Amino acid sequence: MEKPKRHIFVCTSSRINGQQKGYCHAKAGVEIVSRFMEEIEECELGGEVFVSNTGCFGICEKGPIVVIYPDNIWYGSVTPDDVERIIEQHIEGGEPVKELML
Amino acid sequence: MEKPKRHIFVCTSSRINGQQKGYCHAKAGVEIVSRFMEEIEECELGGEVFVSNTGCFGICEKGPIVVIYPDNIWYGSVTPDDVERIIEQHIEGGEPVKELML
Repeated sequence: MEKPKRHIFVCTSSRINGQQKGYCHAKAGVEIVSRFMEEIEECELGGEVFVSNTGCFGICEKGPIVVIYPDNIWYGSVTPDDVERIIEQHIEGGEPVKELML
Repeated sequence: MEKPKRHIFVCTSSRINGQQKGYCHAKAGVEIVSRFMEEIEECELGGEVFVSNTGCFGICEKGPIVVIYPDNIWYGSVTPDDVERIIEQHIEGGEPVKELML
């Protein structure tokens, strides 16, 4: 199996009881996922970068949360407008976006 | 912020439209999350291991899927009964469970 080089996890407050409800969801978590998917397609990164929505990371007050593995970089207070920069600077350029790091 | 030493992601087929529907969900994805949470508490690993439920990883035919970062180990066809072994052998012992690796 070919693993992605980078795996981007975005909290969408998806609960295991099937509800999707919480801070990151309220604060555009779903839109952030969609923007990552658009950017990945646009930059032709589909083969090497994968995006997943997740449940709560337990640090809601710092949300919306985006975590990138295997780099182990945690971003907080992410907005949909930050997505392009994360892709260009971190994913393509290899330089994490310091201003958003937790 | 203190990051977890290991982050376990379990597909529960959580969709960004709020539905939770799909192969891993049908095949005990939610029970696998709960078992990981129980084992982590029992083994007092709460400070260093975190579990997240996720949306689809796109390899449903190999599900239920469990991914562990930053190790970047992908497991397939996981059952709730495999959870104890993953915690003991991989998380505590540092030896990934080869039979389940994709």
